[in-house]
Parts: sequence; C-alpha cells; structure tokens
Amino acid sequence: MYSPINFNAGPATLPVQVLDIIHKDLFNWNNTGVSILTIGHRTSQFAELGERLEASVRRLLHVPDDFAVLFLPGGAQIQFAMIPMNLTRGFQSANYIETGYWSAMAIKEAQKYTQVRLAASSKDQQFTIIPPEETWELRQDAAFLHFTDNETIGGVEFPEVPQVGDMVLVSDMSSNIFSKPIDFNRLGCIYACAQKNFGIAGMSLVIVRRDLLDRALPETPAVFNYAMQDKNHSLLATPTTFAWYVASLICDWVEQEGGVAEMEKRSLVKAKLLYTCIDQSNFYHNSISALYRSRMNVPFLLPNQRLEEEFFLSAKKAGLLYLEGHRSVGGARASIYNAISLKDVERLTEFLNSFAKAR
Amino acid sequence: MYSPINFNAGPATLPVQVLDIIHKDLFNWNNTGVSILTIGHRTSQFAELGERLEASVRRLLHVPDDFAVLFLPGGAQIQFAMIPMNLTRGFQSANYIETGYWSAMAIKEAQKYTQVRLAASSKDQQFTIIPPEETWELRQDAAFLHFTDNETIGGVEFPEVPQVGDMVLVSDMSSNIFSKPIDFNRLGCIYACAQKNFGIAGMSLVIVRRDLLDRALPETPAVFNYAMQDKNHSLLATPTTFAWYVASLICDWVEQEGGVAEMEKRSLVKAKLLYTCIDQSNFYHNSISALYRSRMNVPFLLPNQRLEEEFFLSAKKAGLLYLEGHRSVGGARASIYNAISLKDVERLTEFLNSFAKAR
Repeated sequence: MYSPINFNAGPATLPVQVLDIIHKDLFNWNNTGVSILTIGHRTSQFAELGERLEASVRRLLHVPDDFAVLFLPGGAQIQFAMIPMNLTRGFQSANYIETGYWSAMAIKEAQKYTQVRLAASSKDQQFTIIPPEETWELRQDAAFLHFTDNETIGGVEFPEVPQVGDMVLVSDMSSNIFSKPIDFNRLGCIYACAQKNFGIAGMSLVIVRRDLLDRALPETPAVFNYAMQDKNHSLLATPTTFAWYVASLICDWVEQEGGVAEMEKRSLVKAKLLYTCIDQSNFYHNSISALYRSRMNVPFLLPNQRLEEEFFLSAKKAGLLYLEGHRSVGGARASIYNAISLKDVERLTEFLNSFAKAR
Repeated sequence: MYSPINFNAGPATLPVQVLDIIHKDLFNWNNTGVSILTIGHRTSQFAELGERLEASVRRLLHVPDDFAVLFLPGGAQIQFAMIPMNLTRGFQSANYIETGYWSAMAIKEAQKYTQVRLAASSKDQQFTIIPPEETWELRQDAAFLHFTDNETIGGVEFPEVPQVGDMVLVSDMSSNIFSKPIDFNRLGCIYACAQKNFGIAGMSLVIVRRDLLDRALPETPAVFNYAMQDKNHSLLATPTTFAWYVASLICDWVEQEGGVAEMEKRSLVKAKLLYTCIDQSNFYHNSISALYRSRMNVPFLLPNQRLEEEFFLSAKKAGLLYLEGHRSVGGARASIYNAISLKDVERLTEFLNSFAKAR
C-alpha cells in the first residue's frame, strides 16, 4: 500500500525526513530536557536556532548583506497590510500588478494605507497570462511596484523578475520561495508565508533591503515594524517558535537535497510531466498560457461536475489527497511544492491517465 | 531520576498527556492520512477542529452568546496595537492602568492609535501593588479601560475584576487565562496569547462583546479586524493551524482535570506553598504585597548575584529548568501555570529549602 500524498496548496506536505526529526525532538529537543514546543524564545538554545535559521536562509538564497532577513508572525495576508505600512512613508502611491486572486487581495488591503496605482491587470484575459511588461503603466514617483510572483489559486507564475529600472520591486513569493534562485539585485523586498515551501503555518519570511527601512508609517504595529524587528533579530516579541524550528529543518533538507537550484530543476521536470499529462489527455484542461504556467500550483478542470466528484473520491481511494481546487474557483488543483517528489507526481499522472481512460 | 520541569514564563510547559497525543497524531491525524502539521485549514476535518475549539472555550469559560471568540495569529504584543485599532473609532481616548512592564508596553503601543489616559499607575510603588480603585482617574467618555490582569514579569495580579460601572473593560489575560472563572458581565474584551496556559506560541485568543465590533479604525489590517474574523470563524486567512490543534488539546485536558474552577483551586494551593517557602526562608525575597501576588508567576531575589548564579546551576542539575527572571529585571522567577502540578511545585520548594539551608 502506497502512503498517502497531500497535494494541498497550504498548509502543505512536509518532507518525511523533516517529520521524522520533529517526531524525535518532540519530548527533548537538543538535549535541553524540554520539548521543542515549550522551549523559551529567550534561551541561548533558541537564540542559536534563530541564528542558524537566518544563516541558512542567507546561504540558500544568496541574500546580500544589505538585506534584512525577518521571521514575522502570521501569514502573507498580514503582509498585504504590512508592506504598504512599512514602505510608503514619504510617498503618495504604490504600483500594483493584478494577476489573480492574491494580487487582487493585496491591492484591496494596500488601499487602506496608500493610493494604489493599478499598473497592469490580466483580469480581461481571465488571469491566464502575465500582462506584458511593455503595457505596464507605472507611476515613477510611487513607493514601489508590487507583484505576486506565483498565484497559488490561478496557477500563474512570473517567468522572470520584471525589468523596471530603479523602481523598488516587492514580490510575494509565498508559494514559490525556495523553488528557484532569487536575483536580489533587482528586488527591494520579498515576502512569503511559511506553510508551502518553508514549513508550517504561523510565520512569514520577509527579506528587505535595509535602505528601505526608514519608510514605515507611524501607525505600523511594533511587532510588524521591519526596522524594529531587524534590530531585534525578529525577537521583539515571542515568535512562533515551533514554526522557526520547522523552517530551520526545511532549510537543512533543501541544502542536503542540493539547494534551490536543484529545487528549480526538479520543479521544472515535475511541472512538465504534469502539464503534459493534462494537455495530452483531452479530458483534463488547464487554460494558462504555456509561458506563465506555475511550477508549483497546477489547477485543472474536468469535463463536468459529476466526473469531478467521482475524481476526488477515486483519487482519495488511491491515496492522492486534497486535490480540490480553491473554493473561489472550484475544479481541481495539484500543488507540487518542493516536498512533493517526482515519484509523487508520477503516481498522480498515472492516476490521471487511468481515471480519464476509464471514462 | 526525576524528569525535568520547565518553569519558563512562556513558551511554557505543556501537560505530558498533551505532548503524548501530539506525538501520536504527528504522522496521521484523525485518520486523514496526513500529519496534523500539514492538514489544510479549508478541509472539513480542520473546520470541525475549529468548531470544537470554540465550543470548548465557550464551555470552559462560560462565554455568553453575545461575545465573539476569536483565534488570531501571533501573540499579545500584536493585540496591544489591535485592541485600540479595533475599539476606538468614534472615541478620542482610552483609559489605561499601569501595573508593570506589560501594561506599560500596551500603553506605549496604544499611543499610536488613540490618546491614552493614564488612569492609575503603581510605578511609584515599584509595581508592588495594584493601585486602589478609589484613586483611579477615568475619562468617562473614553473608549475603554485597559488593564493587565496578571503581570508576567512583575508577578502582580488583580485579585478581582475592577468595578467601573458602564466603562468597557479590556483585560490582558495572557498569563492567567484558564486559571480562574471569568465574569463576562463585567468585561467587554479579554485577550491572551496562547503560549502560557493555552498551548504554544503563534496565536492569541480574543473574546469580545459583539456590540463593540463597529469601532474598528479604517486602517485595521483585515486579518486582525475582529468583526471580519468573527464573520469568518477566525479563518479569514490561514490560521496557525497547529497552535489551534494544541489549544484544543489543552481545552480537553483542562476539562478532564475538572475545569477552570479546579485550575483556580490548584493555583491557590501551589502559589501559597511557593510564597510561604519564600517568605519563611530569610534567604529568598518577593516584594509584592500579599493581596496582589500572582498565582502564575512568582519572581524572587536571592541575597547576591554569586548565589543567584550558583542557584541556577544547582537547579538545572536538579532538573528544575529556566528559573531565570526576565532579562529586564533579573533575579529568579518560577512560572507555575496550569501544566505545573502541585508535585512539581513541591519539588521546587524542597530544592529552595535545601539550597538555602546549605548556604
């Protein structure tokens, strides 16, 4: 009997090696005599964990020294508010690109704090493309340009970092962090929730150029003030200690597996296998333009709802779990993050083929 | 050999029964086939967990129906901002009582969002008392009166809910939630981080009267907007799923042990034992007025720093861990939350006695 595979978009599956370590550490972490769940955040042992975590992130992503690496409580939706709160003082506006559900939500939240310039949108194309850069209408005096590097629901991904001259680029990498190298020469700030490629729900990673840290609005809550957290090694308040620990195990695992360049290679192979299976099926359908298809989240439709329901039931029986699409769009979706192996995707495509064939 | 006891103030120790369940559920939770760490927050299984968690809190604390019960990301310091953001629209000011480190920090954060009226302070008494109610100077047209029911660092606790007529009372119960019954007839809002008496770091509990939910400032971040989270069963964004799960186990455990009234009884016995040991020692010293001594956090001083260092080393050898006081005040502190048993406190007092005797 195969073990089940969790294709959920987030919280998402963890490498089994990481789960094994957590299981082992649960009662007595690092010879402290206490559980990793109960270790104090002001202990020397936890301080060391935090230092190792930051060093791992810097090493894996080649983060330059003039960038702060922050681990903040909660998920990316909180950052939808905190990005404009931290980065717009002294500016009248911020540019946003709309490419789907999450960028639209980021825009809606940002409007509370600054004037949002909608620089481009692919709404008229049902979010099946990334709007071509030559059509973007940027306000040059805006604080930054925000884009969603990977739309977890729509399954659209930027093929590369936009070229926007001196404009500060802010990228939501919640669902594709650690799946490819990042060119920090072209980015001012990236952020990502942890529960996809970086561990479990309850914390977010923010990497921000330090020269941008003097732009916080006065009403920014202290715990989410990037400059203050940078000075305090993200320990201004009690952090989500267990999520930090899981993130550090994920970093170790990514390094052991060959780093983010290797993760990128694997993601391309896995995504190609799955999209090819869908395209050749005449049964499943993905409508995203080939150039912009996400390597992480693969949404697809079945011919009708009856077959869709049957599909989820059969998949579940075969140990292929949580393939349901987001409640806002329906259909099916397979999230194939770093912890989903090529073998896992092969099991999925075999199932997709046999299910389609039998209908 | 005794097993070690974690006297940390938070993250704090968990009942061993709860740790055992977590250990068991780690790979396959609730027959889902997936780990509790990776279960999706939109699955029916997690929705059920959320419903059970809310029902448990309502049952344990006798929360009236006209109060919302919210589980929000992050700790209490975030709520220092979110309380005034959610509860001051239409008001010019808010009353605060200063009784130590945490109330002072709550005041500092609130000043970003409203005019803070310092209604009373025990600073001149080195925070060894709660200022008598007859000395409080409240602005009657203020949005609310905020107080810190238990000062985790100073070790001062309100002996009862203040009597302030129609003024909306907001109580920070981070370090004494679930340690006594709560009289919601006299309170408008309580909040508490989870990592002391309610599980692990990464989430907070907010219980707020629903007629107060129309007072949010427009710049309140959506994820922390109490009204929006109430409508969404705290699932507006991905919650700290694992912390919800641990909190639900804590609720089960408190119920099995006899409920919060039983927790209160035990806390009184444990605290009395420890304070008596300190007072009778002529070696250790706690300067808080007897009426206001915390049942949860017991700070104490030793005669000098050399003895203090020796004390921590010897205690550690005896398996009595993390007795160091908060970095802001030094000294020693024993946090004796619900998960610390009377036996644990007995082990501590035996050690205190023998350490003092040997000097």
